[in-house]
Amino acid sequence: MDYHKIRFLPHNREITVPDREILIRAAMEAGVHVNASCGGEGVCGKCRVLIEEGTVEDGITEQLDKEDIDNGYRLACKSLVIGDLVVRIPTESTVDSSVLNRQLTSRRTARIKQPDFNTLKEEGLFVPPVEKIYLELPEPEEQDNQPDVSRLVSNLAQQYDEHRLELNLPVIRKIPDILREDNFRVTATLERPVREGGKNRIINVQSGDTTDRNYAIAMDIGTTTIYGQMIDLVSGESLSQYGDFNGQISYGEDVITRIMYAEKPGGLEKINAVVIETINRVIEKIIQKAAIDPENISAITLAGNTTMTQLMLKVNPRYIRRSPYVPAATLYPPINAADLGMNLGTHVAALVYPQVSSYVGGDIVAGVMGSGMYRTEKLTLYLDIGTNAEVVIGNKDWMACAACSAGPAFEGGGIKFGMRATKGAVEDFSIDPNTFEPMLMTVGNVKPKGICGSGLITMVAVLFETGIINSQGKFNRDLDTNRIREDNNVYEYVLALKEETGVDRDIVLTEIDIDNLIRAKGSIYSGCMTLLEEVGLGITDIEQIILAGGFGSYVDLEKAMTIGLLPEIDPDKVTFVGNGSLMGAKMSSLTNRIRQDVAEVTKMMTNFELSETQSFMDHYVAALFLPHTDIGLFPKLKERLDVQKAGR
Amino acid sequence: MDYHKIRFLPHNREITVPDREILIRAAMEAGVHVNASCGGEGVCGKCRVLIEEGTVEDGITEQLDKEDIDNGYRLACKSLVIGDLVVRIPTESTVDSSVLNRQLTSRRTARIKQPDFNTLKEEGLFVPPVEKIYLELPEPEEQDNQPDVSRLVSNLAQQYDEHRLELNLPVIRKIPDILREDNFRVTATLERPVREGGKNRIINVQSGDTTDRNYAIAMDIGTTTIYGQMIDLVSGESLSQYGDFNGQISYGEDVITRIMYAEKPGGLEKINAVVIETINRVIEKIIQKAAIDPENISAITLAGNTTMTQLMLKVNPRYIRRSPYVPAATLYPPINAADLGMNLGTHVAALVYPQVSSYVGGDIVAGVMGSGMYRTEKLTLYLDIGTNAEVVIGNKDWMACAACSAGPAFEGGGIKFGMRATKGAVEDFSIDPNTFEPMLMTVGNVKPKGICGSGLITMVAVLFETGIINSQGKFNRDLDTNRIREDNNVYEYVLALKEETGVDRDIVLTEIDIDNLIRAKGSIYSGCMTLLEEVGLGITDIEQIILAGGFGSYVDLEKAMTIGLLPEIDPDKVTFVGNGSLMGAKMSSLTNRIRQDVAEVTKMMTNFELSETQSFMDHYVAALFLPHTDIGLFPKLKERLDVQKAGR
Repeated sequence: MDYHKIRFLPHNREITVPDREILIRAAMEAGVHVNASCGGEGVCGKCRVLIEEGTVEDGITEQLDKEDIDNGYRLACKSLVIGDLVVRIPTESTVDSSVLNRQLTSRRTARIKQPDFNTLKEEGLFVPPVEKIYLELPEPEEQDNQPDVSRLVSNLAQQYDEHRLELNLPVIRKIPDILREDNFRVTATLERPVREGGKNRIINVQSGDTTDRNYAIAMDIGTTTIYGQMIDLVSGESLSQYGDFNGQISYGEDVITRIMYAEKPGGLEKINAVVIETINRVIEKIIQKAAIDPENISAITLAGNTTMTQLMLKVNPRYIRRSPYVPAATLYPPINAADLGMNLGTHVAALVYPQVSSYVGGDIVAGVMGSGMYRTEKLTLYLDIGTNAEVVIGNKDWMACAACSAGPAFEGGGIKFGMRATKGAVEDFSIDPNTFEPMLMTVGNVKPKGICGSGLITMVAVLFETGIINSQGKFNRDLDTNRIREDNNVYEYVLALKEETGVDRDIVLTEIDIDNLIRAKGSIYSGCMTLLEEVGLGITDIEQIILAGGFGSYVDLEKAMTIGLLPEIDPDKVTFVGNGSLMGAKMSSLTNRIRQDVAEVTKMMTNFELSETQSFMDHYVAALFLPHTDIGLFPKLKERLDVQKAGR
Repeated sequence: MDYHKIRFLPHNREITVPDREILIRAAMEAGVHVNASCGGEGVCGKCRVLIEEGTVEDGITEQLDKEDIDNGYRLACKSLVIGDLVVRIPTESTVDSSVLNRQLTSRRTARIKQPDFNTLKEEGLFVPPVEKIYLELPEPEEQDNQPDVSRLVSNLAQQYDEHRLELNLPVIRKIPDILREDNFRVTATLERPVREGGKNRIINVQSGDTTDRNYAIAMDIGTTTIYGQMIDLVSGESLSQYGDFNGQISYGEDVITRIMYAEKPGGLEKINAVVIETINRVIEKIIQKAAIDPENISAITLAGNTTMTQLMLKVNPRYIRRSPYVPAATLYPPINAADLGMNLGTHVAALVYPQVSSYVGGDIVAGVMGSGMYRTEKLTLYLDIGTNAEVVIGNKDWMACAACSAGPAFEGGGIKFGMRATKGAVEDFSIDPNTFEPMLMTVGNVKPKGICGSGLITMVAVLFETGIINSQGKFNRDLDTNRIREDNNVYEYVLALKEETGVDRDIVLTEIDIDNLIRAKGSIYSGCMTLLEEVGLGITDIEQIILAGGFGSYVDLEKAMTIGLLPEIDPDKVTFVGNGSLMGAKMSSLTNRIRQDVAEVTKMMTNFELSETQSFMDHYVAALFLPHTDIGLFPKLKERLDVQKAGR
């Protein structure tokens, strides 16, 4: 068989593959990331690459412009390798994890409210699920030669009133030598039970006194990104944080394509290995950055949506995507992190956040727990906007939740120049109402490369308020500007001309893009409305909104209300918690109270499958306008629009 | 480096080794078993091999006769390979596991009393620690899409009143697919808790109804042999049994040399792997012989002494052999058998019998539990004679126990022609009181090769009662026979001449051998006496004796009393339980009651470290006679001897 050599740019990575290999598979094998939101099925058109040297067979679909084709662009998932190649991955097709770790400046309208560690302490709740206890044991002698384990257990009882202790074989194996390493002075690490009266598991023994060094990892397993924090369980502080893109992105951008991949033979094992690899990279980084001895890490708490959780645990997710959408489990027992393939000591307990349903997962539960929503009297709307959007309404006494399939618009999916909030993404926008010339701000302040979710919202809100698009999201065809033009029968607004950009094309916002955004925000808004209706309440009953999700931290609140993504509410009642999943994982690392309460809370969280109800469809259709069919729901906006109209 | 080829006979197995390799290591690597009771330290002289072709360097110690040396015998552990060799392993240096699996004919004096399954049933105690339950679950639908695990758990509660259920990740991984394999008809396997109010672990799920197929393995991990039984948990029957020599024999014959080996770098891992290998061989055989589907094996119960248990679990045993003799643990939690390296399904629970102390281990606890001693009112003496001897005295209200280091005499160790009870071992013996000519019976009825433990006892008892040896174990120098002769200043009795034997030498019983036996039996007897004294009782208080151990089943009870190994007691009060450890493991497989009771029983078993007390030494010295310094302790024997004396 013939083999061909491929060099990928700008990575400058080489690989040799057999004749007629599909180009995107070659890239995957070479560890070169190319976006492929359809899992390589050739329909999303995201995997556009430039063939700089050599020739491929096929690779051309209607997803490519004539200009693209002439310039040598091909779709990697449709190209067959028939000779040596040099292939450039365009910047907009790659992701750059460095941007995940920069310091974010919060929005002018944002009120970031992370849970307060001091309050936790004052409430007496700073009791981590893993605690260390130092003991000085009497040395064995002829008249007292009880087994080593009994000596430890009986002294924990006598000296510290610790009872109902259990331990597993790997710990038993350590005990005889560790006890004698420092003359029977040892530190035992106890994992606290979830239930009152449950067992205290001795998960580790160390020689000497190590009680001043006890750490836990909090981790958010997102569909797109994985974030980890190193928590000091003595001081309660976060010592380091790191985020990286979930390596599974190469196997599909959303949970459905991941599940489809996992259903292929060997797919689950592969996609599991990939996420564990990312997790291990994050673990390595936060250990490095915190400069601690990993031997003193006692636990890792993980929160993720149902699919991410099952893929991480290598639990077949195929029934999640099939009606009636059944997840494998709600609660998972503590698992040895090492058994999951994590590069952590064999004693480290992996504590997994429970799920409510197939589409309301551990990430949302973590947010509800970590934000304290489950303990408040206030009627709260909790909204997490990520690859999917999840809504929870309720307070300490009851909760209703639902997931809305918003589509990937907020993360750049389905938007012609959509991209994640990485370097070069347009994140803020204003317009001259007379010349219609734009003013752009990009992430990293470089030449624009595309539009991220929060930029898109701002852009559409501004275009709508200035009357450049109407409530149906259509451009005013009568304006005197060449910024608005028709291309291939689609109207578009030219945001930046080719020479102004960091890519090699004009960056535009099309009516199709706007339509996709309207569908996405319509889905979320109607999700909230339907859920409220299901529980017999209205918008005005809501006493606070908690916004979560990376997206939630960037978004301009007023603009989000302008397009009708969020109900119009006093901005003071809105708080952003940032990554709710990570925050919940962190809070759980600090207080075992959350683990004790969470099973009851998930039982209390009634799940509604909205997408299939008539009520949701009615709300959805009504929400497919800017801001909504019923402008009366947005009184302040109406007032502004009326003033403007009067002014013209 | 030079390499040399070695061929081992009679195995005809070849291996190539580097120059100056030690011969016994080469044999080990070639998988050729050579006895080495000292672990290869060159002091036991057991590894005598015949160099048929080629030459070795060294290999000669005082353990070899001049005749041996002239005939080409060398000690394998002291021989360096310096050229190609053909080496024959003499029959007496090998073991033959087939003998372990022959049908034993019990002794005329034996009353084998295995615990009765029907009684167990009548008492309502036939409740195995692992039970199967068949369920028909409602299929998920839109209005009932709870997670798969919740569906299983809630239906176990509703349909069978099963609560406090828990399950681990490997089982969760199975559930989604298994539920759908036969339309939500499933069989769940539950492992019952040790404590009332404890958790019921769901350890397996299978599609369809498999409740009529549920099996458990009972296994005795002996220092010398490993026996397994396949138990049908539906009928309570034993379906198959198989025994094999513990592969660790090659690393030392007793627990001390095994521990010493385990202390070398990598030694624990190696010696653990070896016993797991033997266990897996036994498992394979009993599965084969029972002709069952291994998928339906739910548990394996293992009983072994403290060292064997720790080696099997890969728990460092070094502190067992050092004062104050501390074992790692008393109780071990249920462990996944697969995690221990056993070739069993990942769901199979390994249940390990608890230990009392370093020298009263799970094998004895199993005997005490399985024989029902722990539930009887009768004051009982339980005696297990194996590589070591363990004594338990007590009843359902209290128990005292101790181990005696009897030495390996009962298994052929320290006896010039000592051997295990394998083919060719002299097991019965009588003598013509006039001609002093012997009459021998051997295991397998072949030419004699040596003397096994029960044969030795009978021989010494007969020689003593006929006045050929005196109460100090010395031969009567005045008898007119060439059967008794002096060789190298040691008196010996010629049991068989070279040409009558299956080996190539005269088989003799020496005064040194007799002395070793007297020391061994003295140790056991004084162990019993000291323990009785410690609890303020005497021999006459004992209401029954339970004898355990392979040895216990062969021994001639009357002869054992004659030499003073056992106290003189009405033979009707003595029962043999055979392999007490295996029996206990089996009983535990049939009734969870034993697991529930055993922790309390081990707490109740007071351990006495006899060997270091003055009282034991006094008793021991007094017992170094046949049958004892105080013949008054053996009134019936005294009567017989008096009658004989009068008759002469």
